[in-house]
Amino acid sequence: MLAFSPSIKTLVAELKKLPGIGPKSAQRICFWLLKHRDEGYGLDLSQALSKALGEAKICSLCHNISDDDPCNFCSDILRERTKLCVVEEPFNIYAIERSSLYKGLYHVLGGNLSPLNGVGPEELNLNSLVKRVSSQEIEEVIIATSPTTEGSATAHYIVELLKGHRNLKISRIALGLPLGADIDYVDSLTIAQAIEARTII
Amino acid sequence: MLAFSPSIKTLVAELKKLPGIGPKSAQRICFWLLKHRDEGYGLDLSQALSKALGEAKICSLCHNISDDDPCNFCSDILRERTKLCVVEEPFNIYAIERSSLYKGLYHVLGGNLSPLNGVGPEELNLNSLVKRVSSQEIEEVIIATSPTTEGSATAHYIVELLKGHRNLKISRIALGLPLGADIDYVDSLTIAQAIEARTII
Repeated sequence: MLAFSPSIKTLVAELKKLPGIGPKSAQRICFWLLKHRDEGYGLDLSQALSKALGEAKICSLCHNISDDDPCNFCSDILRERTKLCVVEEPFNIYAIERSSLYKGLYHVLGGNLSPLNGVGPEELNLNSLVKRVSSQEIEEVIIATSPTTEGSATAHYIVELLKGHRNLKISRIALGLPLGADIDYVDSLTIAQAIEARTII
Repeated sequence: MLAFSPSIKTLVAELKKLPGIGPKSAQRICFWLLKHRDEGYGLDLSQALSKALGEAKICSLCHNISDDDPCNFCSDILRERTKLCVVEEPFNIYAIERSSLYKGLYHVLGGNLSPLNGVGPEELNLNSLVKRVSSQEIEEVIIATSPTTEGSATAHYIVELLKGHRNLKISRIALGLPLGADIDYVDSLTIAQAIEARTII
Protein backbone atom coordinates (compact mmCIF):
# COMPACT_ATOMS: atom_id res chain seq x y z
CA MET A 1 0.00 0.00 0.00
CA LEU A 2 1.40 3.35 -1.06
CA ALA A 3 0.99 6.18 1.40
CA PHE A 4 -0.21 9.73 0.81
CA SER A 5 2.29 12.39 -0.26
CA PRO A 6 4.10 13.91 2.74
CA SER A 7 2.25 17.24 2.71
CA ILE A 8 -1.13 15.50 2.37
CA LYS A 9 -0.24 13.04 5.13
CA THR A 10 0.64 15.91 7.47
CA LEU A 11 -2.57 17.78 6.72
CA VAL A 12 -4.70 14.65 7.27
CA ALA A 13 -2.88 14.02 10.57
CA GLU A 14 -3.57 17.58 11.74
CA LEU A 15 -7.23 17.46 10.70
CA LYS A 16 -7.64 14.14 12.54
CA LYS A 17 -6.72 15.85 15.82
CA LEU A 18 -9.81 18.09 15.67
CA PRO A 19 -12.74 17.08 17.88
CA GLY A 20 -15.31 14.95 16.05
CA ILE A 21 -13.11 14.40 12.99
CA GLY A 22 -12.17 10.77 12.33
CA PRO A 23 -9.63 9.45 9.82
CA LYS A 24 -12.15 9.19 6.96
CA SER A 25 -13.52 12.70 7.50
CA ALA A 26 -9.98 14.07 7.73
CA GLN A 27 -9.12 12.51 4.34
CA ARG A 28 -12.32 13.78 2.79
CA ILE A 29 -11.80 17.34 4.08
CA CYS A 30 -8.14 17.33 3.03
CA PHE A 31 -8.87 16.31 -0.57
CA TRP A 32 -11.86 18.62 -0.71
CA LEU A 33 -9.63 21.54 0.27
CA LEU A 34 -7.04 20.56 -2.34
CA LYS A 35 -9.62 19.97 -5.04
CA HIS A 36 -11.17 23.38 -4.44
CA ARG A 37 -7.83 25.10 -4.03
CA ASP A 38 -8.52 27.57 -6.79
CA GLU A 39 -11.76 28.70 -5.16
CA GLY A 40 -9.70 29.80 -2.17
CA TYR A 41 -11.44 27.92 0.65
CA GLY A 42 -8.16 26.50 1.97
CA LEU A 43 -6.40 29.84 1.89
CA ASP A 44 -9.36 31.59 3.54
CA LEU A 45 -9.46 28.93 6.24
CA SER A 46 -5.74 29.17 6.86
CA GLN A 47 -5.93 32.97 7.12
CA ALA A 48 -9.04 32.90 9.34
CA LEU A 49 -7.28 30.42 11.60
CA SER A 50 -4.10 32.49 11.90
CA LYS A 51 -6.13 35.63 12.53
CA ALA A 52 -8.32 34.03 15.19
CA LEU A 53 -5.27 32.50 16.90
CA GLY A 54 -3.59 35.89 16.88
CA GLU A 55 -6.59 37.92 18.02
CA ALA A 56 -8.35 35.62 20.45
CA LYS A 57 -7.90 36.50 24.09
CA ILE A 58 -9.15 34.83 27.23
CA CYS A 59 -11.33 37.26 29.15
CA SER A 60 -9.66 37.96 32.48
CA LEU A 61 -13.07 38.24 34.16
CA CYS A 62 -15.18 35.37 32.82
CA HIS A 63 -12.62 33.24 30.86
CA ASN A 64 -14.68 33.45 27.67
CA ILE A 65 -12.61 33.53 24.48
CA SER A 66 -13.09 36.59 22.25
CA ASP A 67 -11.14 39.30 20.46
CA ASP A 68 -11.30 41.61 23.47
CA ASP A 69 -10.42 41.50 27.14
CA PRO A 70 -12.80 42.03 28.93
CA CYS A 71 -14.99 40.17 26.45
CA ASN A 72 -18.07 41.67 24.79
CA PHE A 73 -20.36 40.18 27.46
CA CYS A 74 -18.38 41.46 30.44
CA SER A 75 -17.99 44.92 28.94
CA ASP A 76 -21.62 45.27 27.84
CA ILE A 77 -23.16 47.82 30.20
CA LEU A 78 -26.67 46.77 29.22
CA ARG A 79 -26.38 43.30 30.77
CA GLU A 80 -27.69 42.61 34.28
CA ARG A 81 -24.68 42.54 36.57
CA THR A 82 -26.49 40.77 39.42
CA LYS A 83 -26.79 37.42 37.65
CA LEU A 84 -23.93 35.08 36.79
CA CYS A 85 -24.42 32.00 34.63
CA VAL A 86 -21.73 29.32 35.03
CA VAL A 87 -21.00 27.29 31.87
CA GLU A 88 -18.43 24.66 30.93
CA GLU A 89 -17.02 26.05 27.69
CA PRO A 90 -17.11 29.35 25.77
CA PHE A 91 -19.37 27.92 23.05
CA ASN A 92 -22.02 27.07 25.69
CA ILE A 93 -22.52 30.82 26.08
CA TYR A 94 -23.84 31.00 22.53
CA ALA A 95 -26.27 28.13 23.11
CA ILE A 96 -27.72 30.11 26.02
CA GLU A 97 -27.66 33.40 24.08
CA ARG A 98 -29.67 31.79 21.27
CA SER A 99 -32.51 31.19 23.74
CA SER A 100 -32.71 35.01 24.17
CA LEU A 101 -33.95 34.75 27.76
CA TYR A 102 -30.87 35.35 29.86
CA LYS A 103 -29.39 38.83 30.01
CA GLY A 104 -26.83 38.47 32.82
CA LEU A 105 -23.10 37.77 32.92
CA TYR A 106 -21.23 34.51 32.34
CA HIS A 107 -18.43 32.55 33.93
CA VAL A 108 -16.62 29.85 31.93
CA LEU A 109 -15.29 26.94 34.01
CA GLY A 110 -13.17 25.41 31.24
CA GLY A 111 -14.70 21.94 31.67
CA ASN A 112 -16.18 19.74 34.36
CA LEU A 113 -14.68 17.98 37.35
CA SER A 114 -13.45 14.64 36.08
CA PRO A 115 -11.00 12.92 38.43
CA LEU A 116 -10.53 10.01 36.00
CA ASN A 117 -9.26 12.44 33.37
CA GLY A 118 -7.11 14.33 35.85
CA VAL A 119 -9.44 17.34 36.07
CA GLY A 120 -9.75 18.44 39.68
CA PRO A 121 -10.99 21.75 41.14
CA GLU A 122 -7.57 23.33 40.48
CA GLU A 123 -7.94 22.80 36.74
CA LEU A 124 -11.24 24.71 36.57
CA ASN A 125 -11.79 28.47 36.88
CA LEU A 126 -13.29 28.15 40.37
CA ASN A 127 -11.07 30.51 42.34
CA SER A 128 -11.98 33.37 40.07
CA LEU A 129 -15.66 32.40 40.40
CA VAL A 130 -15.48 32.67 44.21
CA LYS A 131 -13.63 35.95 43.88
CA ARG A 132 -16.21 37.41 41.49
CA VAL A 133 -19.09 36.34 43.73
CA SER A 134 -17.37 37.81 46.83
CA SER A 135 -16.38 41.11 45.38
CA GLN A 136 -19.11 41.93 42.90
CA GLU A 137 -22.77 42.69 43.22
CA ILE A 138 -23.83 39.15 42.15
CA GLU A 139 -27.21 38.11 43.60
CA GLU A 140 -27.78 34.84 41.77
CA VAL A 141 -25.48 32.19 40.34
CA ILE A 142 -27.18 30.03 37.71
CA ILE A 143 -25.31 26.78 37.08
CA ALA A 144 -25.64 25.57 33.49
CA THR A 145 -23.27 22.59 33.41
CA SER A 146 -24.36 19.54 31.38
CA PRO A 147 -26.88 17.08 32.85
CA THR A 148 -24.22 14.34 32.99
CA THR A 149 -22.57 12.70 36.00
CA GLU A 150 -19.61 15.03 35.67
CA GLY A 151 -21.71 18.12 35.06
CA SER A 152 -23.86 17.33 38.10
CA ALA A 153 -20.82 16.65 40.30
CA THR A 154 -19.41 20.01 39.21
CA ALA A 155 -22.73 21.72 40.01
CA HIS A 156 -22.76 20.18 43.51
CA TYR A 157 -19.16 21.21 44.06
CA ILE A 158 -19.97 24.81 43.13
CA VAL A 159 -22.95 24.83 45.50
CA GLU A 160 -20.67 23.68 48.36
CA LEU A 161 -18.09 26.26 47.40
CA LEU A 162 -20.48 29.19 47.35
CA LYS A 163 -23.05 28.35 49.98
CA GLY A 164 -21.34 30.41 52.71
CA HIS A 165 -22.06 33.63 50.82
CA ARG A 166 -24.70 35.92 52.34
CA ASN A 167 -27.96 36.29 50.43
CA LEU A 168 -26.63 34.50 47.36
CA LYS A 169 -29.22 32.56 45.37
CA ILE A 170 -27.74 29.51 43.64
CA SER A 171 -29.80 27.72 40.99
CA ARG A 172 -29.30 25.09 38.33
CA ILE A 173 -31.11 25.18 34.98
CA ALA A 174 -34.01 22.72 35.02
CA LEU A 175 -33.63 19.09 33.97
CA GLY A 176 -36.71 17.42 32.50
CA LEU A 177 -38.40 16.58 29.21
CA PRO A 178 -37.19 18.63 26.25
CA LEU A 179 -40.01 20.55 24.56
CA GLY A 180 -41.65 18.67 21.72
CA ALA A 181 -40.41 15.29 22.97
CA ASP A 182 -42.57 12.19 22.66
CA ILE A 183 -42.67 10.81 26.22
CA ASP A 184 -42.47 7.27 24.81
CA TYR A 185 -39.01 7.98 23.42
CA VAL A 186 -37.57 9.81 26.42
CA ASP A 187 -35.16 7.69 28.52
CA SER A 188 -36.38 6.57 31.93
CA LEU A 189 -33.77 8.54 33.92
CA THR A 190 -35.02 11.76 32.37
CA ILE A 191 -38.62 10.82 33.11
CA ALA A 192 -37.71 9.99 36.73
CA GLN A 193 -35.98 13.37 37.01
CA ALA A 194 -38.98 15.13 35.43
CA ILE A 195 -41.38 13.51 37.91
CA GLU A 196 -39.14 14.31 40.86
CA ALA A 197 -38.83 17.95 39.78
CA ARG A 198 -42.51 18.33 38.87
CA THR A 199 -43.98 21.78 39.29
CA ILE A 200 -47.39 22.59 40.75
CA ILE A 201 -49.65 24.17 38.12
CA MET B 1 -28.24 37.82 21.26
CA LEU B 2 -24.63 38.94 21.07
CA ALA B 3 -22.61 37.53 18.20
CA PHE B 4 -19.15 36.00 18.24
CA SER B 5 -16.10 38.22 17.96
CA PRO B 6 -15.27 39.04 14.32
CA SER B 7 -12.22 36.76 14.08
CA ILE B 8 -14.11 33.85 15.69
CA LYS B 9 -17.11 34.44 13.45
CA THR B 10 -14.90 34.30 10.34
CA LEU B 11 -13.19 31.11 11.47
CA VAL B 12 -16.53 29.42 12.24
CA ALA B 13 -17.84 30.50 8.82
CA GLU B 14 -14.79 29.03 7.07
CA LEU B 15 -14.96 25.77 9.04
CA LYS B 16 -18.67 25.45 8.21
CA LYS B 17 -17.82 25.31 4.50
CA LEU B 18 -15.90 22.04 4.93
CA PRO B 19 -17.72 18.87 3.88
CA GLY B 20 -19.48 17.12 6.76
CA ILE B 21 -19.03 20.06 9.18
CA GLY B 22 -22.26 21.66 10.40
CA PRO B 23 -22.64 24.89 12.39
CA LYS B 24 -22.33 23.17 15.80
CA SER B 25 -19.23 21.19 14.82
CA ALA B 26 -17.68 24.34 13.36
CA GLN B 27 -18.19 26.20 16.66
CA ARG B 28 -16.83 23.30 18.66
CA ILE B 29 -13.73 22.95 16.48
CA CYS B 30 -13.14 26.72 16.52
CA PHE B 31 -13.23 27.00 20.30
CA TRP B 32 -11.23 23.79 20.70
CA LEU B 33 -8.49 25.28 18.51
CA LEU B 34 -8.52 28.54 20.48
CA LYS B 35 -8.60 26.76 23.83
CA HIS B 36 -5.60 24.61 22.87
CA ARG B 37 -3.77 27.47 21.20
CA ASP B 38 -0.72 27.08 23.40
CA GLU B 39 -0.37 23.41 22.46
CA GLY B 40 0.09 24.53 18.87
CA TYR B 41 -2.62 22.48 17.14
CA GLY B 42 -4.04 25.52 15.36
CA LEU B 43 -0.65 26.73 14.19
CA ASP B 44 0.33 23.23 13.04
CA LEU B 45 -2.95 22.92 11.15
CA SER B 46 -2.57 26.32 9.52
CA GLN B 47 0.99 25.48 8.45
CA ALA B 48 0.06 22.00 7.21
CA LEU B 49 -2.75 23.54 5.20
CA SER B 50 -0.56 26.21 3.61
CA LYS B 51 2.11 23.62 2.81
CA ALA B 52 -0.34 21.16 1.28
CA LEU B 53 -1.99 23.91 -0.77
CA GLY B 54 1.41 25.02 -1.98
CA GLU B 55 2.81 21.57 -2.74
CA ALA B 56 -0.21 19.68 -4.03
CA LYS B 57 -0.28 19.11 -7.75
CA ILE B 58 -2.84 17.46 -9.96
CA CYS B 59 -1.21 14.54 -11.77
CA SER B 60 -1.27 15.27 -15.49
CA LEU B 61 -1.75 11.57 -16.24
CA CYS B 62 -4.34 10.28 -13.75
CA HIS B 63 -5.64 13.52 -12.08
CA ASN B 64 -4.77 12.23 -8.62
CA ILE B 65 -3.66 14.95 -6.17
CA SER B 66 -0.18 14.53 -4.70
CA ASP B 67 3.09 16.41 -4.16
CA ASP B 68 4.48 15.20 -7.49
CA ASP B 69 3.47 15.23 -11.12
CA PRO B 70 3.29 12.46 -12.30
CA CYS B 71 1.97 11.19 -8.97
CA ASN B 72 3.59 8.39 -6.99
CA PHE B 73 1.24 5.81 -8.52
CA CYS B 74 1.84 6.82 -12.13
CA SER B 75 5.60 7.02 -11.65
CA ASP B 76 5.91 3.73 -9.75
CA ILE B 77 7.60 1.31 -12.17
CA LEU B 78 6.54 -1.68 -10.06
CA ARG B 79 2.82 -1.23 -10.76
CA GLU B 80 1.08 -3.21 -13.53
CA ARG B 81 0.69 -0.83 -16.44
CA THR B 82 -1.92 -2.95 -18.22
CA LYS B 83 -4.70 -2.30 -15.69
CA LEU B 84 -6.47 0.99 -15.10
CA CYS B 85 -8.89 1.49 -12.22
CA VAL B 86 -11.34 4.39 -12.66
CA VAL B 87 -12.38 6.13 -9.43
CA GLU B 88 -14.41 9.23 -8.60
CA GLU B 89 -12.10 11.11 -6.27
CA PRO B 90 -8.43 10.97 -5.23
CA PHE B 91 -9.26 9.62 -1.76
CA ASN B 92 -11.02 6.63 -3.33
CA ILE B 93 -7.57 5.47 -4.44
CA TYR B 94 -6.56 5.00 -0.82
CA ALA B 95 -9.68 2.97 -0.05
CA ILE B 96 -8.69 0.59 -2.85
CA GLU B 97 -5.03 0.61 -1.83
CA ARG B 98 -6.00 -0.44 1.70
CA SER B 99 -7.48 -3.65 0.28
CA SER B 100 -3.95 -4.50 -0.95
CA LEU B 101 -5.26 -6.49 -3.93
CA TYR B 102 -4.99 -4.11 -6.84
CA LYS B 103 -1.54 -3.25 -8.21
CA GLY B 104 -2.41 -1.39 -11.40
CA LEU B 105 -2.78 2.28 -12.32
CA TYR B 106 -5.59 4.70 -11.51
CA HIS B 107 -7.65 7.32 -13.27
CA VAL B 108 -9.55 9.94 -11.25
CA LEU B 109 -12.78 11.19 -12.84
CA GLY B 110 -13.31 14.08 -10.46
CA GLY B 111 -16.90 13.05 -9.64
CA ASN B 112 -19.85 11.33 -11.28
CA LEU B 113 -22.18 12.36 -14.04
CA SER B 114 -24.95 14.35 -12.38
CA PRO B 115 -27.01 16.42 -14.84
CA LEU B 116 -29.11 17.87 -11.99
CA ASN B 117 -25.96 19.33 -10.43
CA GLY B 118 -24.62 20.51 -13.75
CA VAL B 119 -21.98 17.79 -14.04
CA GLY B 120 -21.92 16.49 -17.60
CA PRO B 121 -19.24 14.46 -19.41
CA GLU B 122 -17.25 17.65 -20.08
CA GLU B 123 -16.79 18.23 -16.34
CA LEU B 124 -15.21 14.82 -15.78
CA ASN B 125 -11.75 13.64 -16.81
CA LEU B 126 -13.12 11.44 -19.59
CA ASN B 127 -11.19 12.76 -22.60
CA SER B 128 -7.91 11.97 -20.89
CA LEU B 129 -9.26 8.51 -20.01
CA VAL B 130 -10.01 7.75 -23.67
CA LYS B 131 -6.60 9.12 -24.64
CA ARG B 132 -4.79 6.96 -22.07
CA VAL B 133 -6.67 3.85 -23.15
CA SER B 134 -5.94 4.55 -26.83
CA SER B 135 -2.28 5.32 -26.52
CA GLN B 136 -1.09 3.17 -23.67
CA GLU B 137 -0.76 -0.54 -23.19
CA ILE B 138 -3.98 -0.78 -21.08
CA GLU B 139 -5.67 -4.20 -21.33
CA GLU B 140 -8.35 -3.82 -18.67
CA VAL B 141 -10.33 -0.87 -17.32
CA ILE B 142 -11.86 -1.56 -13.91
CA ILE B 143 -14.64 0.88 -13.06
CA ALA B 144 -14.87 1.57 -9.32
CA THR B 145 -17.50 4.33 -9.16
CA SER B 146 -19.98 4.23 -6.27
CA PRO B 147 -22.95 1.84 -6.39
CA THR B 148 -25.37 4.78 -6.59
CA THR B 149 -27.60 5.91 -9.45
CA GLU B 150 -25.01 8.48 -10.48
CA GLY B 151 -22.07 6.12 -10.08
CA SER B 152 -23.84 3.48 -12.16
CA ALA B 153 -24.80 5.99 -14.86
CA THR B 154 -21.17 7.07 -15.00
CA ALA B 155 -20.04 3.44 -15.28
CA HIS B 156 -22.45 2.85 -18.18
CA TYR B 157 -21.28 6.02 -19.89
CA ILE B 158 -17.66 4.90 -19.66
CA VAL B 159 -18.53 1.49 -21.09
CA GLU B 160 -20.19 3.19 -24.09
CA LEU B 161 -17.23 5.49 -24.48
CA LEU B 162 -14.62 2.75 -24.49
CA LYS B 163 -16.35 -0.17 -26.08
CA GLY B 164 -14.96 0.52 -29.55
CA HIS B 165 -11.43 -0.20 -28.38
CA ARG B 166 -9.87 -3.43 -29.64
CA ASN B 167 -9.29 -6.19 -27.10
CA LEU B 168 -10.08 -3.96 -24.15
CA LYS B 169 -11.65 -5.69 -21.15
CA ILE B 170 -13.99 -3.40 -19.19
CA SER B 171 -15.17 -4.49 -15.75
CA ARG B 172 -16.93 -2.99 -12.77
CA ILE B 173 -16.12 -3.96 -9.18
CA ALA B 174 -18.75 -6.39 -7.87
CA LEU B 175 -21.92 -5.22 -6.13
CA GLY B 176 -23.40 -7.57 -3.53
CA LEU B 177 -23.47 -8.30 0.19
CA PRO B 178 -20.60 -6.75 2.16
CA LEU B 179 -18.53 -9.35 4.03
CA GLY B 180 -19.73 -9.97 7.58
CA ALA B 181 -23.21 -8.58 6.87
CA ASP B 182 -26.29 -10.11 8.44
CA ILE B 183 -28.56 -10.83 5.46
CA ASP B 184 -31.55 -9.78 7.56
CA TYR B 185 -30.22 -6.25 7.79
CA VAL B 186 -29.15 -5.83 4.18
CA ASP B 187 -31.51 -3.68 2.09
CA SER B 188 -33.60 -5.45 -0.53
CA LEU B 189 -32.03 -3.71 -3.53
CA THR B 190 -28.62 -5.04 -2.51
CA ILE B 191 -30.05 -8.54 -2.05
CA ALA B 192 -31.73 -8.37 -5.48
CA GLN B 193 -28.41 -7.28 -6.99
CA ALA B 194 -26.56 -10.08 -5.14
CA ILE B 195 -28.99 -12.70 -6.44
CA GLU B 196 -28.82 -11.36 -9.96
CA ALA B 197 -25.02 -11.36 -9.90
CA ARG B 198 -24.73 -14.75 -8.18
CA THR B 199 -21.63 -16.76 -9.02
CA ILE B 200 -21.53 -20.51 -9.68
CA ILE B 201 -19.49 -22.27 -6.99
